[in-house]
Amino acid sequence: MSIIIQKRLEALRIFMQKHGLSAFIIPSTDPHSGEYVPEHWETRKWISGFTGSAGTAVITLNGGGLWTDSRYFLQAEEQLAGTGLRLFKERLPETPSIPEWLGGVLPEGSRVGMNGWVMNATEVQDLQRFFTAHRMEAVCTEDPFDELWTDRPSLPQAPVFLLSTEYSGRSCADKIEQIREYLAQNHADALLVSALDEVAWTLNLRGTDVHCNPVFVSYLFITAQDALLYILPEKLTPEITSYLEKNHITVRPYSAVESDIAQYKGKNICLSPSVNYQLYQAARAAGRVTECASPISFLKAIKNETEIAGFRSAMRKDGVAMVKFLKWLKEAVKSGKETEMSIDKKLYEYRAEQELFRGISFDTIAGYQEHGAIVHYEATPETDATLQPEGFLLLDSGAQYLDGTTDITRTIALGSVTEEQKRDYTLVLKGFINLAMAEFPHGTCGTQLDVLARQAMWKAGINYGHGTGHGVGHFLCVHEGPQQIRMNHVPALLLPGMTITNEPGIYKSGRYGIRTENTMLVVESQSTEFGSFYKLDSLTLCPIDTAPIVLSMLSEEEKAWLNRYHARVYSELSPMLNDEERAWLAEATTFIY
Amino acid sequence: MSIIIQKRLEALRIFMQKHGLSAFIIPSTDPHSGEYVPEHWETRKWISGFTGSAGTAVITLNGGGLWTDSRYFLQAEEQLAGTGLRLFKERLPETPSIPEWLGGVLPEGSRVGMNGWVMNATEVQDLQRFFTAHRMEAVCTEDPFDELWTDRPSLPQAPVFLLSTEYSGRSCADKIEQIREYLAQNHADALLVSALDEVAWTLNLRGTDVHCNPVFVSYLFITAQDALLYILPEKLTPEITSYLEKNHITVRPYSAVESDIAQYKGKNICLSPSVNYQLYQAARAAGRVTECASPISFLKAIKNETEIAGFRSAMRKDGVAMVKFLKWLKEAVKSGKETEMSIDKKLYEYRAEQELFRGISFDTIAGYQEHGAIVHYEATPETDATLQPEGFLLLDSGAQYLDGTTDITRTIALGSVTEEQKRDYTLVLKGFINLAMAEFPHGTCGTQLDVLARQAMWKAGINYGHGTGHGVGHFLCVHEGPQQIRMNHVPALLLPGMTITNEPGIYKSGRYGIRTENTMLVVESQSTEFGSFYKLDSLTLCPIDTAPIVLSMLSEEEKAWLNRYHARVYSELSPMLNDEERAWLAEATTFIY
Repeated sequence: MSIIIQKRLEALRIFMQKHGLSAFIIPSTDPHSGEYVPEHWETRKWISGFTGSAGTAVITLNGGGLWTDSRYFLQAEEQLAGTGLRLFKERLPETPSIPEWLGGVLPEGSRVGMNGWVMNATEVQDLQRFFTAHRMEAVCTEDPFDELWTDRPSLPQAPVFLLSTEYSGRSCADKIEQIREYLAQNHADALLVSALDEVAWTLNLRGTDVHCNPVFVSYLFITAQDALLYILPEKLTPEITSYLEKNHITVRPYSAVESDIAQYKGKNICLSPSVNYQLYQAARAAGRVTECASPISFLKAIKNETEIAGFRSAMRKDGVAMVKFLKWLKEAVKSGKETEMSIDKKLYEYRAEQELFRGISFDTIAGYQEHGAIVHYEATPETDATLQPEGFLLLDSGAQYLDGTTDITRTIALGSVTEEQKRDYTLVLKGFINLAMAEFPHGTCGTQLDVLARQAMWKAGINYGHGTGHGVGHFLCVHEGPQQIRMNHVPALLLPGMTITNEPGIYKSGRYGIRTENTMLVVESQSTEFGSFYKLDSLTLCPIDTAPIVLSMLSEEEKAWLNRYHARVYSELSPMLNDEERAWLAEATTFIY
Repeated sequence: MSIIIQKRLEALRIFMQKHGLSAFIIPSTDPHSGEYVPEHWETRKWISGFTGSAGTAVITLNGGGLWTDSRYFLQAEEQLAGTGLRLFKERLPETPSIPEWLGGVLPEGSRVGMNGWVMNATEVQDLQRFFTAHRMEAVCTEDPFDELWTDRPSLPQAPVFLLSTEYSGRSCADKIEQIREYLAQNHADALLVSALDEVAWTLNLRGTDVHCNPVFVSYLFITAQDALLYILPEKLTPEITSYLEKNHITVRPYSAVESDIAQYKGKNICLSPSVNYQLYQAARAAGRVTECASPISFLKAIKNETEIAGFRSAMRKDGVAMVKFLKWLKEAVKSGKETEMSIDKKLYEYRAEQELFRGISFDTIAGYQEHGAIVHYEATPETDATLQPEGFLLLDSGAQYLDGTTDITRTIALGSVTEEQKRDYTLVLKGFINLAMAEFPHGTCGTQLDVLARQAMWKAGINYGHGTGHGVGHFLCVHEGPQQIRMNHVPALLLPGMTITNEPGIYKSGRYGIRTENTMLVVESQSTEFGSFYKLDSLTLCPIDTAPIVLSMLSEEEKAWLNRYHARVYSELSPMLNDEERAWLAEATTFIY
């Protein structure tokens, strides 16, 4: 492999020399700032051989490096061997940033190339500022991989499909009208939508272009009069074409977006900070640019009643699949033949039996024992561990249904666990329950609630490095903003109708990992002389393993919450189960005292 | 009174006409951005007749207004009657901001005057931007009140005194050296210190220029070589003069600060955002200005071991005074002769008996029944309520001792209280205890912990509008930053050695108010593979009234905390009490079950 990579690097260096460039920066994202990227844009993977989901390659004329985070240190080390590329470990104090490193190795006057389509505007401006101060230059070029990557996958051509208002709850015309009201209120002439989930939400359309995320590659440009959809024409069926026509949405070639915006002269265009640099420049050249948090991200975050009903239905189905799976699991592991990958396949089968199932919502994390401590673990044939009837299995999974998206984590004691594991399991559960019981006034953001999930483990000197909660899209991306619950300050408010996960965890490196996660819904709680108060309602319906609980560590209030939750899980799921499954669920949801 | 005010306004308008000004803005602060202000700078009070602690007067040629907050709506209404000045109620949606209002009433081309010495730089710049956009002009003039206010109090001339290292724990030379290290690290040439508590802390000097705050009027200018103290020479005793000389601190006239800075050419001067506009302009004209959070505020916030020992000693003395007072109080109110003001006098006497007492640290808030719901209530002869043996008395008070500053609130049931009052008292107590029990990792800021104090009452649909905690200075200002605990995001970390109050409350307008407050110290808790963890240790030592507690609402953990705290209060204070007092304290700290 390393010889192939060396040849590819050689070809890129010839391109760089032709363009007078001393370095080229290749990020892992696409023109739509996606978390997952269609194959067509996996250029960083192609040029470096590194297959992790996050990382930036920087190629110089005689070397280069790859920047990635701790999840991928081992993997990157192996995959970069023999390529001449050096691994830079992000977030370690000794690791230089990309511009710092380039400033050190390149002489003054150097030009650093990048493809403006796959860099966001803020990133490029920061680089430009830094390089200018170091008497260097940031240069946006054409995409070098169009020429170098001879068998580059084409742009995805899979058809777009309609998500009827039966599921979306609101017509596309209605959504566009609300966006136009926002534009008018903000004295803006147009909004450029480049995030794929925002296009999909606005138009009530979905696609299959991105792994696990039912979106499709496109841009949407909304003005007071027009709505223009930039998309490959191959993706449009006659049904969709007619739907777009009926909704007065003009179809334009995907590649025409830049020239169209450039012709939109003298206008005030709203751009979200994630828009790519190429289109940012086009908009700025045409008129006045207003950088704004996308209004669609706020509108989309607050689910309507149909979406909420859909979520509840999807969660019941997902709960049924989980119950069938959990019932099967504890027996199956006794055979000594089940592995992390084989049980994931089984879980997939149970979910696939459910109505309106459309695939998984992210790659399952099934981490047995020490694999559970690797926060973003994904089993591969090389690492795939055989499950034994002992210790913890951490299982984080989710599905896409036409009526909703799910995201659930359960940690299951496959047999005996140690006292320390039980204590840590109970600390996670205490955090989970205390956040689940939260009530808070209007105006509260996730940062204010985060401590509720951590206070019990902090008292034991334990913490976790990831966020406590993220929004979940409605038959869309499983990670959705703007709301979050985390230690860092995120100002977005938690408002009724928003989804938010509740997922504290404890990870003991090389030993085990524990996480318990429900997807929650923000709902109204009460209105008093002190204002409106909200609380969280569990959407996820699935028993929480009570076997590893240290009962004496739970308060009466915490036990009562768990018993109430389990009673609800039983009452909602049991009608959808057969006698044997129902008996198992009754056992799994037995009250604790 | 209103005729006198009208005459003063007339005089100011003549000054304005002479200077071609259509309006003049008079804020309530001084050149040092103080919370309390020496009489010399009480110009807003002089010109408007409004005596509240916060408010801005804006005088136009034929009218004007006063902007203040809800604490002072009634008082301002009365005091402005007949002056021709209109009351503008801040934070109400219909109230225009000062520039908005001026933009509406003044014609284009108008010039708005202000005294740059009593406005901070950011304020003036914001006004300039706004006025420029409205084709008006912000103009800084000389101080009109030097001329108009014929019997204006002079600048305070009271002597400065030394706080020995026996109490401060650290020499002034040592502190200045650390500040110089900060300057060197930040490539800055000088630091201008204008906050009075920062000057006092750095030099280990104190004064009596400001009510309740042992500071003195001065500026300090620190460079790599020099330290210059700008102060009235009258304030320096021979002892202090010699102390300053020994420490290589040059004394300069208070009025020379502007011209000295103007001559400090081509240098990089650090200024905190609170520096006044006049000096900001002088520094900018001379060289390069770096706006920075003052390094002194961070250094000062972390108390050294001597300061901490002093705090503990001061808290014991304050606790003794409080115990004597509380023992006296419940008996005394039965007479029907005690009032909010009379009991404050009594409390003062008990404190004044204590060693190293140097006055109160803020004006006592003694609010009986409905007065307790007024968050910044201060009893006056007109409002002074007679205490009856029933209902709640909210008592927020504190003292200055040479070895530390105290700030404590107790809510005392003077007799029977209602079920609702008991419930609310217990909700406040639950919040107080949960924050007191907090443990948290390095990197935590107050915003993350705030919910611990509010969660119990939020579940009952109740909230309070003030912050939960502020830092407390060491024989300095009772409100000290940068750390805070509040709903809004304040990024300053809570670090070992910092003081922070814990003061949740419930206020039912027109009925009653409840607040319980201890001053806490951030201390190390444990160090694990997950990092360093900290917790809060109560500095304040005083029983918490157990009579109004609804025991069934407290968890076992909460009861255990209160019992532990009361055991400690008894063990630390009882050796300093006589038999009768000790018996009372034993009763007051009896365990609850």
